Amino acid sequence: MLDFPVEDLSAEDVARLRGIYEPLTRSVRELIDATIRTEAGEDAVAAARREIEAATARLRSRQLDGAFGVRHGSEGDAMPWGNVVIGVRNPVAPPLTFTKTPDGLVRADFHLGAAYEGPPGHVHGGVAALILDHALGEVASSSASPRLTGTITLRYRRITPLGALHVEASMVRTEGVKAYAAGHLADAEGVTVEAEGVFIQPRWARD
Amino acid sequence: MLDFPVEDLSAEDVARLRGIYEPLTRSVRELIDATIRTEAGEDAVAAARREIEAATARLRSRQLDGAFGVRHGSEGDAMPWGNVVIGVRNPVAPPLTFTKTPDGLVRADFHLGAAYEGPPGHVHGGVAALILDHALGEVASSSASPRLTGTITLRYRRITPLGALHVEASMVRTEGVKAYAAGHLADAEGVTVEAEGVFIQPRWARD
Repeated sequence: MLDFPVEDLSAEDVARLRGIYEPLTRSVRELIDATIRTEAGEDAVAAARREIEAATARLRSRQLDGAFGVRHGSEGDAMPWGNVVIGVRNPVAPPLTFTKTPDGLVRADFHLGAAYEGPPGHVHGGVAALILDHALGEVASSSASPRLTGTITLRYRRITPLGALHVEASMVRTEGVKAYAAGHLADAEGVTVEAEGVFIQPRWARD
Repeated sequence: MLDFPVEDLSAEDVARLRGIYEPLTRSVRELIDATIRTEAGEDAVAAARREIEAATARLRSRQLDGAFGVRHGSEGDAMPWGNVVIGVRNPVAPPLTFTKTPDGLVRADFHLGAAYEGPPGHVHGGVAALILDHALGEVASSSASPRLTGTITLRYRRITPLGALHVEASMVRTEGVKAYAAGHLADAEGVTVEAEGVFIQPRWARD
């Protein structure tokens, strides 16, 4: 069974924590991009490393034992802040912000830069898979009924350029503990990758 | 057509550049982990941000216009350093180091920490897809004949814990411009995710 701790945090506490850690995460995202693209020389890189290591030491002075996990405030608000796709505390996450339309479509507009590269100038095929897996899982799950990926198939229509992108997913049907979802990734010219998958409610989350 | 620039870099130049930038990337990976797991207070976080932003400014003083791409030294050695799975200059990459056995199996042992989390304490299903997509693409391609993902299917046997992991892939068969590959992700207890895919030689890489 997965651990979803509920902590004694009011909505105000959650907002305060977000105000402290979200700008830090944003700064680290900028640093990641700068690290990949820099052509600075040996001395500048050595000075940058000293600053980075000083920052790491400050942050490690008090830290969680393991990964961040998903925490819940006392008012039930989920904080999936460590998540690699949507986590506001995870610098590896672009991060995506999904919205759900009244007819049940899950969608997000986002930007992928140098950190997500596979073929030169293009999104790694596996990053497209990562984002589609998350979008389909989001539409297949609810907080009352989480579902994890059972099987997913990705079809690559053409390579996806780095830059402004869009993802959307919708539920095809549910069948007991299974939900079938489908979606696609697109750039301004249209669909680049299509996905369909089966998502399954884990045993520990069943009634 | 993708851009694979050949630069006037000897093997020695390539080693020198790696010696400058690889330790920087490693430091940023440590910082990413510390950023997700820190419980440091407001003042320490503000001080860390100042250091991070100073480092970013130093690195941005001279930088590439776009993403890193794949460069080649004058002796033909590929430098896929910006790649999100294997790039030694990309802090988002774990990074994986693949080896090829004499019978054509591609394999890598690696460790995934807090930055790759989906379900609490576990690898995001999409990160498993990212790594398997790369491993299958690696076995389906050669430098003379690159192939990109056409279709890939992932089957999740159980959730993958964060920690020490292993991936391997092998070629099933080739059929003209197509290559069929299969593989799996495993932890110490055995297989967690299976994958099979079709990889296609892009038009620009055909004779």
